[in-house]
Amino acid sequence: MILVADNLRITNSVIERAIMEMNPKPVIEMVIKCTKAGAKAIDLNCGPLTRQTESRISFLVKTVQKISDLPILLDTANPVAIEAGLKASQKKTIINGFSLEPAKLAKILPLAKKYQVDIIGYLLHPNGQVPQNSSERLDIALNLFLEFQKTGLDVSNLIIDPIIAPLSWQNGKTQNREILKVIQTLPELLDFPVRIIAGLSNLTAGGQNAAKNRCLEKAYLSMLAAAGLDIILLNILHPKIVQHALVCDLLLNENIFTWEEIPS
Amino acid sequence: MILVADNLRITNSVIERAIMEMNPKPVIEMVIKCTKAGAKAIDLNCGPLTRQTESRISFLVKTVQKISDLPILLDTANPVAIEAGLKASQKKTIINGFSLEPAKLAKILPLAKKYQVDIIGYLLHPNGQVPQNSSERLDIALNLFLEFQKTGLDVSNLIIDPIIAPLSWQNGKTQNREILKVIQTLPELLDFPVRIIAGLSNLTAGGQNAAKNRCLEKAYLSMLAAAGLDIILLNILHPKIVQHALVCDLLLNENIFTWEEIPS
Repeated sequence: MILVADNLRITNSVIERAIMEMNPKPVIEMVIKCTKAGAKAIDLNCGPLTRQTESRISFLVKTVQKISDLPILLDTANPVAIEAGLKASQKKTIINGFSLEPAKLAKILPLAKKYQVDIIGYLLHPNGQVPQNSSERLDIALNLFLEFQKTGLDVSNLIIDPIIAPLSWQNGKTQNREILKVIQTLPELLDFPVRIIAGLSNLTAGGQNAAKNRCLEKAYLSMLAAAGLDIILLNILHPKIVQHALVCDLLLNENIFTWEEIPS
Repeated sequence: MILVADNLRITNSVIERAIMEMNPKPVIEMVIKCTKAGAKAIDLNCGPLTRQTESRISFLVKTVQKISDLPILLDTANPVAIEAGLKASQKKTIINGFSLEPAKLAKILPLAKKYQVDIIGYLLHPNGQVPQNSSERLDIALNLFLEFQKTGLDVSNLIIDPIIAPLSWQNGKTQNREILKVIQTLPELLDFPVRIIAGLSNLTAGGQNAAKNRCLEKAYLSMLAAAGLDIILLNILHPKIVQHALVCDLLLNENIFTWEEIPS
């Protein structure tokens, strides 16, 4: 699994202020911390950025890329921010992301084609609602794939995010079990080894007990890995979770890591 | 998952001496510890017991059952010990176990019928060798099931153990990935919800680093659980592994545990 840091997020007030004030220091510090912790890519979750959109996203992308060669994920629903981020970026960039929502199909998906970059598709209904079972998710995946193919991009540019449900939701457990099935089924359904990403922090969103959250994340992360997940978006500053992710890879893949490379 | 303690084993020198001397105290102490730690059944791994077979197994079974109502697993390759254990037992007893080895088919499998008890079948070749892939394991499972059916026992008396490979084996990782597939496939292949057991301690047998062993066990245990494992035989005195097993159940099953029941 490729580990993507979700730490550069506007919901962190230090990062939020840094973006608003275009102050590079907190951003650089965070990128350095994430890289040391083992991140292989960095998600830039900058929110809608409704004001000074272009200058702020451009500041963020350039600041990160000044000190890091890691791929970045432009994680925003604002197509103006995405396009400005793509223009500012000098390194590998992934759009995070689109869905069957008409506005996203119209404004975000075409940017992947225009800039020839990877794009993440969310398994959500056109109205933004979360599907209720694996069969609905697989239908959505097929429709998403059809829309993606209309762009003419190569299938290898598509990444799918089944959207982990918070366990605090009434049917969160059920949804997350269904997601395991979906991850196992997607490559066969789409008839190519589609890459699949998931955001682990969603699982315990709203959970107040940190020890409990880490236990649940570890247990579910192994299940995701065994189901065939390719990319995990997570708080890379939880060392025990990172270690657990690497141990999963150790068990599931030949010759990727030796134990000695796994931080203890 | 049902948690079965593998701690009452003759490879523990304290337990070995207690069995040899028929001294109940260390056995009772271990049963109490295992029960407090969350064991729902106790495996009595007494080795071949070549001398004083009947009196020793009878001592062991009676000592355990004097203070515990938990089901016991008679874990020995010696059919004389198994029959004596079955005679001594007053409570639920499972034979652990048989395989396609001719001596086991001839001497151990019939005891399940005679005493109308559950029996565990190992996915091993008739010569005792470990199969090399999932296809060999599934062939063996079919043959094992055919042999089991000849006894006339109800299918619900059969439990299958795919035999986890030590990671220290050259192809241990590959074998254990194959086992995940086998666990997922068996109920469909045999066309009934066959119960599946696995012994987690095998995974890290020979591993000298306890922290590393626990990490690997946690990661693989979640994968086993998600694949559909029903019963896990493990060192119940590793509280973090027990917690992890309960968290897996919390994620995979409705209304079995609430977090508050899981020891922290």
